[in-house]
Amino acid sequence: MDVKAAVALEVGKPLAIETVQLEPPKAGEVLVEIKATGVCHTDAYTLSGADPEGIFPSILGHEGAGVLVEVGEGVKSVAPGDHVIPLYTPECRQCAYCLSMKTNLCQAIRATQGQGVMPDGTSRFSLDGQKLFHYMGTSTFSNYTVLPEIAVAKIRSDAPFDKVCLIGCGVTTGIGAVVNTAKVEPGANVVVFGLGGIGLNVIQGAKMVGASKIIGVDLNPAKRALAEKYGMTHFVNPQEIEGDLVAHLVELTDGGADYSFECIGNVKVMRQALECCHKGWGVSVIIGVAGAGEEISTRPFQLVTGRVWKGSAFGGARGRTDVPTIVDWYMEGKINLDDLVTHVMPIDKINDAFDLMHKGESIRSVITF
Amino acid sequence: MDVKAAVALEVGKPLAIETVQLEPPKAGEVLVEIKATGVCHTDAYTLSGADPEGIFPSILGHEGAGVLVEVGEGVKSVAPGDHVIPLYTPECRQCAYCLSMKTNLCQAIRATQGQGVMPDGTSRFSLDGQKLFHYMGTSTFSNYTVLPEIAVAKIRSDAPFDKVCLIGCGVTTGIGAVVNTAKVEPGANVVVFGLGGIGLNVIQGAKMVGASKIIGVDLNPAKRALAEKYGMTHFVNPQEIEGDLVAHLVELTDGGADYSFECIGNVKVMRQALECCHKGWGVSVIIGVAGAGEEISTRPFQLVTGRVWKGSAFGGARGRTDVPTIVDWYMEGKINLDDLVTHVMPIDKINDAFDLMHKGESIRSVITF
Repeated sequence: MDVKAAVALEVGKPLAIETVQLEPPKAGEVLVEIKATGVCHTDAYTLSGADPEGIFPSILGHEGAGVLVEVGEGVKSVAPGDHVIPLYTPECRQCAYCLSMKTNLCQAIRATQGQGVMPDGTSRFSLDGQKLFHYMGTSTFSNYTVLPEIAVAKIRSDAPFDKVCLIGCGVTTGIGAVVNTAKVEPGANVVVFGLGGIGLNVIQGAKMVGASKIIGVDLNPAKRALAEKYGMTHFVNPQEIEGDLVAHLVELTDGGADYSFECIGNVKVMRQALECCHKGWGVSVIIGVAGAGEEISTRPFQLVTGRVWKGSAFGGARGRTDVPTIVDWYMEGKINLDDLVTHVMPIDKINDAFDLMHKGESIRSVITF
Repeated sequence: MDVKAAVALEVGKPLAIETVQLEPPKAGEVLVEIKATGVCHTDAYTLSGADPEGIFPSILGHEGAGVLVEVGEGVKSVAPGDHVIPLYTPECRQCAYCLSMKTNLCQAIRATQGQGVMPDGTSRFSLDGQKLFHYMGTSTFSNYTVLPEIAVAKIRSDAPFDKVCLIGCGVTTGIGAVVNTAKVEPGANVVVFGLGGIGLNVIQGAKMVGASKIIGVDLNPAKRALAEKYGMTHFVNPQEIEGDLVAHLVELTDGGADYSFECIGNVKVMRQALECCHKGWGVSVIIGVAGAGEEISTRPFQLVTGRVWKGSAFGGARGRTDVPTIVDWYMEGKINLDDLVTHVMPIDKINDAFDLMHKGESIRSVITF
């Protein structure tokens, strides 16, 4: 079938709006009509060429929502008409990772997903006979896409696509890091480094679970107002601190953060995030993606005296299980997605969304079809 | 009273066997007759001058066992005749750290302990009128010592002092790291770096809780036999591995260690210990003490993909609560202390114990009084 997509033809070039050919779903796959998709920093990271695993030409996009329209052979867990969110972290419920119940990093289709193809090793997309690669197994910058059955979360049908699409990445990454990875408890003191889309979701996750002090750290004072709306109780601008930022944060938290979150991807900030944690029990969670080859470091004494250093991918969420719950949280008013969506535009304008992101003028631009 | 002690008069010099004056216990303190004490690497570390917090002249020793002979004013939790193990990590059960139930790092007397004095700011030891400092709050290289009430664990009276003294440090540090810090579960695969006294106790802790593969890593093949006796199932000598040690360990554990333990104090090994852990859930625990100023590092991707980096001090054990239990485990035959004690000697020979340690010829030398 012919579909309309934004194609990443070459590294660093604007996306091209094209009519693309999409083959029907094969066994274990589903066809989804994408109704809305966020444009995330990870899409820009890959498009820029900085992602060493980027493959071109491809159809980017991984933060979508839509309606399932057709199933391939053997698909039983979902049916046409189901509203779904594509999952770049699938959940097969059968691999050693899923069954461990210790991680959300399902490995069932990891190899082929990384190669930009469906589990059978082929792509469903082509442009004038030329193969186009899938991206993160999702390729939501297209009004129709094919996904493995295990890579869709069925959600309630009354949830608005142009909001809950963000649960496909940023929202779950931030809230999940609080709820699943750190397991923040009521009354805890939390420090969040970086008040972009992820940081705001860490903040609202911390607020939701009853954290006490929720301290946001960002160089940009313009981030303050929205972060406060999301639940931030204290704002710290490192440029306004006399002396050491870590010492300041330790003082502000009466001995150190119970939990800290790095939402930037800066290895120096990752160290600060660890070292501002409370002796004895502080847990620091790395969410941000560092540049290729960059390393974190600290003195081991930081760990021997009780701090824990860990990381989170897709918020530790098992997609088919946890994503529908987060959609419920939105529909029940527990979390705020509306203020994250700063721009809405059609696919034809998608390059504007990248521009807005690069200029720091958007939290999320959402493309609607 | 006059007591017999090994005194660390100067950095790097042999200990001097002296008759020392000991004042009676003040309020909240107890007098303990030390019956046996292990000689640990940490004593040697301080004596060497490498410990930036070392204070001289002092009475070293922190791995003891003995009988309580006198209590100071207000002491209620223990009484004369009680068999006790001194605790360099006390347990006041009242500070924010104890009450958090998240850490064993009681802070009640940390400041004065670090200054080499009792909680009232003074020392009980003197030599010919010259003040001698306490060490780690314990100073077990003396046939009598004074300790804060919160720094003694009451143990059963039928346990042999010359064995259970090791529970005052090395045994609890190793077994506790497995049981309390890592919480290793039955069937887990475990990798232990360094097969000295701590590593052997990690191994027997892992065996006790039902670990599956217990892989020991050491450059010295002479360590193999005893480690196997303690429960090691596989021995890896890094010098005999072709290619990358981490890749070898990942293969040997079918994807990576569920838990790894660094028992050396080498920051490069700490990195290997983290990186040999299983993607998604592997937990690496740092036990060894690195040199002053040394740093650990890794790529943050290691953590984002699910590995956890943490540390352990005194095995995460709350001394008054957990040490008596570990004594029970020994008396019930669950753990083996006997093979750790390679030498027994009187206090007059204590410098021989340091020599044996430096030559790598002892696991533990125990001094008996």
